[in-house]
Amino acid sequence: MAAVAEGLNAMTTIPTTTAPADLALAAVTGNTIVSETAVLIFIPAACVIGILFAVLQWSVVGKISVRPSGGGMNYPLMGDEGLEDSSVVTRCAEIQEAISEGAVSFLMTEYKYLSYFMVGFFIVIFAFLGATEDFGTDRKPCEWDATKLCGSGVMNALLSAVAFALGAITSTLCGFLGMKIATFANARTRSRRGGGVGPAFKAAFRSGAVMGFLLTSLGLIVLYFTILIFQRYYGDDWIGLYESIAGYGLGGSSVALFGRVGGGIYTKAADVGADLVGKVERNIPEDDPRNPAVIADNVGDNVGDIAGMGADLFGSLAESTCAALVVSSLSDFGKEMNYVAMSFPLLITGAGILVCLITTLVATDLTSGVSNIKGIEPALKQQLVISTVLMTPVIALLAWGCLPDTFEIINGAETKVVKKWYMFFCVACGLWAGLLIGYTTEYFTSHQFTPVRDVADSCRTGAATNVIFGLALGYKSVIIPILAIAFTVFVSHTLAAMYGIACAALGMLSTLSTCLAIDAYGPISDNAGGIAEMAEMGPAIREKTDALDAAGNTTAAIGKGFAIGSAALVSLALFGAYINRAGITSVDVILPKEFVGLIVGAMLPYWFSAMTMKSVGKAALAMVEEVRRQFNTIAGLMQGTVKPDYKRCVEISTDASLREMIPPGCLVMLTPLVVGGLLGKETLAGILAGALVSGVQIAISASNTGGAWDNAKKYIEAGGNDHARTLGPKGSDCHKAAVIGDTVGDPLKDTSGPSLNILIKLMAVESLVFAPFFKTYGGVLFVLWDKFVAGKY
Amino acid sequence: MAAVAEGLNAMTTIPTTTAPADLALAAVTGNTIVSETAVLIFIPAACVIGILFAVLQWSVVGKISVRPSGGGMNYPLMGDEGLEDSSVVTRCAEIQEAISEGAVSFLMTEYKYLSYFMVGFFIVIFAFLGATEDFGTDRKPCEWDATKLCGSGVMNALLSAVAFALGAITSTLCGFLGMKIATFANARTRSRRGGGVGPAFKAAFRSGAVMGFLLTSLGLIVLYFTILIFQRYYGDDWIGLYESIAGYGLGGSSVALFGRVGGGIYTKAADVGADLVGKVERNIPEDDPRNPAVIADNVGDNVGDIAGMGADLFGSLAESTCAALVVSSLSDFGKEMNYVAMSFPLLITGAGILVCLITTLVATDLTSGVSNIKGIEPALKQQLVISTVLMTPVIALLAWGCLPDTFEIINGAETKVVKKWYMFFCVACGLWAGLLIGYTTEYFTSHQFTPVRDVADSCRTGAATNVIFGLALGYKSVIIPILAIAFTVFVSHTLAAMYGIACAALGMLSTLSTCLAIDAYGPISDNAGGIAEMAEMGPAIREKTDALDAAGNTTAAIGKGFAIGSAALVSLALFGAYINRAGITSVDVILPKEFVGLIVGAMLPYWFSAMTMKSVGKAALAMVEEVRRQFNTIAGLMQGTVKPDYKRCVEISTDASLREMIPPGCLVMLTPLVVGGLLGKETLAGILAGALVSGVQIAISASNTGGAWDNAKKYIEAGGNDHARTLGPKGSDCHKAAVIGDTVGDPLKDTSGPSLNILIKLMAVESLVFAPFFKTYGGVLFVLWDKFVAGKY
Repeated sequence: MAAVAEGLNAMTTIPTTTAPADLALAAVTGNTIVSETAVLIFIPAACVIGILFAVLQWSVVGKISVRPSGGGMNYPLMGDEGLEDSSVVTRCAEIQEAISEGAVSFLMTEYKYLSYFMVGFFIVIFAFLGATEDFGTDRKPCEWDATKLCGSGVMNALLSAVAFALGAITSTLCGFLGMKIATFANARTRSRRGGGVGPAFKAAFRSGAVMGFLLTSLGLIVLYFTILIFQRYYGDDWIGLYESIAGYGLGGSSVALFGRVGGGIYTKAADVGADLVGKVERNIPEDDPRNPAVIADNVGDNVGDIAGMGADLFGSLAESTCAALVVSSLSDFGKEMNYVAMSFPLLITGAGILVCLITTLVATDLTSGVSNIKGIEPALKQQLVISTVLMTPVIALLAWGCLPDTFEIINGAETKVVKKWYMFFCVACGLWAGLLIGYTTEYFTSHQFTPVRDVADSCRTGAATNVIFGLALGYKSVIIPILAIAFTVFVSHTLAAMYGIACAALGMLSTLSTCLAIDAYGPISDNAGGIAEMAEMGPAIREKTDALDAAGNTTAAIGKGFAIGSAALVSLALFGAYINRAGITSVDVILPKEFVGLIVGAMLPYWFSAMTMKSVGKAALAMVEEVRRQFNTIAGLMQGTVKPDYKRCVEISTDASLREMIPPGCLVMLTPLVVGGLLGKETLAGILAGALVSGVQIAISASNTGGAWDNAKKYIEAGGNDHARTLGPKGSDCHKAAVIGDTVGDPLKDTSGPSLNILIKLMAVESLVFAPFFKTYGGVLFVLWDKFVAGKY
Repeated sequence: MAAVAEGLNAMTTIPTTTAPADLALAAVTGNTIVSETAVLIFIPAACVIGILFAVLQWSVVGKISVRPSGGGMNYPLMGDEGLEDSSVVTRCAEIQEAISEGAVSFLMTEYKYLSYFMVGFFIVIFAFLGATEDFGTDRKPCEWDATKLCGSGVMNALLSAVAFALGAITSTLCGFLGMKIATFANARTRSRRGGGVGPAFKAAFRSGAVMGFLLTSLGLIVLYFTILIFQRYYGDDWIGLYESIAGYGLGGSSVALFGRVGGGIYTKAADVGADLVGKVERNIPEDDPRNPAVIADNVGDNVGDIAGMGADLFGSLAESTCAALVVSSLSDFGKEMNYVAMSFPLLITGAGILVCLITTLVATDLTSGVSNIKGIEPALKQQLVISTVLMTPVIALLAWGCLPDTFEIINGAETKVVKKWYMFFCVACGLWAGLLIGYTTEYFTSHQFTPVRDVADSCRTGAATNVIFGLALGYKSVIIPILAIAFTVFVSHTLAAMYGIACAALGMLSTLSTCLAIDAYGPISDNAGGIAEMAEMGPAIREKTDALDAAGNTTAAIGKGFAIGSAALVSLALFGAYINRAGITSVDVILPKEFVGLIVGAMLPYWFSAMTMKSVGKAALAMVEEVRRQFNTIAGLMQGTVKPDYKRCVEISTDASLREMIPPGCLVMLTPLVVGGLLGKETLAGILAGALVSGVQIAISASNTGGAWDNAKKYIEAGGNDHARTLGPKGSDCHKAAVIGDTVGDPLKDTSGPSLNILIKLMAVESLVFAPFFKTYGGVLFVLWDKFVAGKY
């Protein structure tokens, strides 16, 4: 502890040298146009504006009363059947409170485990990284310039661990707030339906926006201040500074492991469990209030799709920023301490917040809004287009104003001369690739287009053909996203090596606030429909919620496509940062260590998916037993005279999901440590590459297959055209076949598929953080093997 | 044509220098113990023995009469109900003839297209390779030794094309003969059942053995003589010689494309088409003679599983031998023209034929054989173990006798010193990895073990959980095979670079004759069951055929596991040979070209699977329409008084499958040419690596998932224990759910999964053959791009 104290002491005593812009070396030509002060002000200002905007949206949604006697706007709850009945509205409010309570109870339990994990991993980071530098307490000469002093071993380890904790805490906070607003919005989205589909759409969309803006702004502002504070210790040592900062990404991603995997298991265990007993055994409709698992099901939508997705994308944002910072700190910007240029990644995100703000206003205030059901999907899609189009010139401005004319970026053993407008191409490529992925996903999962209609058609010959066609659709849907990613990788790597790729990832994530708003819209609408059903609101309202929800399925799939696309770029950027930090000069897959890593890495997503799918199965089984028990032992439940014990089901889902996430969680967290430690940094590099290229395919195909099945079912149910009516109605053989596909798709699209993002990102960022350890101590087994082959014989 | 004539003329005039064993350079130490003459005699002798043994087995099976009045052994067709009735036996014979006719008709149509393809591709090879050397007609000084004369451009191109044609013709011949004996055996397997399960088992197994021995022996002997004849032209230029020989592998694999993909589509289109109308719409049992598609279904089992599998494994054998020869010709053996050592790959296969012969005798003559149903699976498994155990010391002997004490093998830009006992480890590693993969596959697909029983159990909650559990099982089943492959790759690459991997692949394939016998056993039994059903032989016999068939499903899965395992090693070896031939020194996946290749390559198996699954769907739909038409228009069909038009269904399957294989076939054949030509040899290297590591996982999981579903269904149907009886009987809800899983699994395990072998191998061997072209002319687009980035700005 003395060492730590000394280190902390040092933080205040060593003077910091901030950005001597006139110290430009040969490689950097031209100064940045924007001044350091402007950057120092702009980033926190953008974040504060984002946060204020989120609070504003929250207050607008909050003004919608869910109780007939409530204050605020007291929205005229009339016009739709059932809504004039105050008892229905009261029931609504009750259900909303039950869902909110269940969600909070899950999160609290999750946070309990998360806190154990964080403390444990905090110690692991400190121990492993500290051991690499023998827990040295003295500042030592920098490797890149022996005349300067760099951070001590203990402080490097400690600050990495602190950054990890900060990332984890910020992500947790964002997830919690996002979920709060989502559960808060559920009933309001429904209530608003009293005023037609427009206000309901706006309520759901505003609620999603709260989540989007809070997450991006909080994530950025915490990172900004962490860098400023850490800089007080590191001073000139920007390489050490940004390497510690990488812990922030690891923290964010670790929470995503809990959110995506734990939350994913929760949501599908509850969903499948509720359906298997309710729909299959008891023959009662979906979301029927008599089903004891119905609240858990609705809670699941919030914890899995909202908190999980939020944590996932928060992780992506934090990781790609960290990857960009690590790579550029090893290059010109870091060595020359050019603060403005160094902040380019943060500026992209900051500017993105403002662009998304304008985009959101278009949907909620600047246009007349959505007037009918058919307008929902176009309105959501419009958001993607507007944000992308607006962002493009902004990126050009940033590149022009905040980067020197030319600079050098490290590229393996060499460096690459980069012109500033190259960076515009990198970021823009990522941005537009995101849009293309979104559109492709929509094409393959919306029932407006032939793919989903073909799948619906295949239900004519039964569930088997439905499953076959759905799987084939998913496989096919990977082609364009992969080509888009490949093109982006090629352009950005050619122009600016791994820095280009990290910036392309940030480009894709620059419209994150809007994407999250669109994505959160899905589960919020889904839940609204659930509440309408539970509160027995009548078919007219339910029909509308179904339409809102069908659009939600598509946007959820778009969100997932976006999440996996950015995850691929982020992982590659992290991979590049890992390579640099671990001192690897090439990952040559014709060499045995690398090839073995590659093929085993490509296997990991399968192992991981098998685990998560089995976890859903086990957790669902626990749920099935409880629901059966309640139906069998609680008299009057089927008649609707007695209420089921919703709480018990929520508890069971919570416990089962957190227990079942342990094996897949261990696979993700331990693989880099075990492989890096036993088989060395080269094999680990192979593992990362293999897991990335294989995982991204399964993730895209799984989420699109699931989305397509879900919407094929909805297409048959809705019977919106002649073709659909020949397949339906609800309860027909076709519809039954479609339901089977939908059920198969549930764990694919909501658990195993999206969880793969975490697999590939978390392994990469963990490798990055522990790279110095693997560099020094890694590859024990191969050392022994080499001795065996070369030495002894 | 003058050039060609001149070249052919040169073949006879240039004197050949055969193996100056005393010319040993510094790198090679010690002479080979075995003499050149011994090798020259041993290889054809082993082949001839193999062929004679196959003929002997054929004649034994042929002695079983299928007609009551037939000659030969006139097996006492008594004891089982129905068999004393001569009309049943006559019907059997008729059905067998119909199947045989259908199979031949399919093959003949296939061969028609195949011949167009072969002529076309012959020209492509000649043109591309000829263009690389400007169609030079003069022998030129060798690159590796300017004092010697190497082959001319035109002759290199021509002989590569000739080798291609020879490979294709041999593979076609093997497939044709294999199918002939399989259709010939179908009814005999059934008839023998009159004498109990033992003789029936033997009949099926012997028939499989015919296929196994013919294929291996013919493949080897043709290759042996091709090498001898080509040597007359090449003389000292062994590098040129073996590079032309690589065309043989390409030929074998091209036929496999037709066999596996075309045959795979055929078999499942017929199967799914027959089931959808028969079982689902008309509610008649499987293999009911009233179903017009029933003959096509049985033909499909022969063309897909027998001819397709045979062509696939023939391709593997030819390719891995070629890969080993190319790599070693570039190394010491080739430069020093050590014929004995050079023949090591051929010797492994030759010795394997003899070992498998002894193994087969154990099952058919040396032991008492199978006496009851339970004994079938162990007897088949025993075959794998016996052949592996016997082969191990044989490999040691070969390595000891036929290799010099130490030698050098090319390894990228360097060379590696290899001791002769290293090669024992490489080959043995491959051999035992094959056994391990076989056992793992059995564990995951046999209903003796928990995984399949869990899947059967999951049918309690419906088809959706069955599908989810089945998919998870498939994902999980990749872990051990991949680790086994990874271990083999690591050991053999470390010991002997890419030559080690090619030899490991040959080790795995050394028990090919036995593996093919086991594998062909499956569809033969399946067909026997079909014939029994169609001939209305009564439940007692059908029960036994079902038991034979359940074991057959498992062995079919083992065969597929083995095929994909060897495909992985073969592709890697071909990849290594391609790298050497294209002059690539490293495939560094952190570089953009290679990474782009890697991720797009990893996507190709998905694209290809989507295509093949859709092809099955389309072809099945064509079949459904025809079957429906017949049921609707032929009066008396449902009553069984009028025979359906089987022939029309066979025609439809044939046409649809060959038409539908065009898109996936083009994807496989064009990708290397387009990528290599436009994006260059480095991107192509990435593509090959990506397709390999991603494809192998999908192939394993698809074939195991399908096998598990099939056997879960059979487990429920058989009701062999208390647990199974709680799930059954046939027609229960559980069983219906299991049937859906089985139907989903059909295209996965018989079309898209196994076809992936072809994708990864064919792309690799094609790249190898065209490597000189890509080296000279490849990468047009990147050349332009580099000019754009570097030159213009």
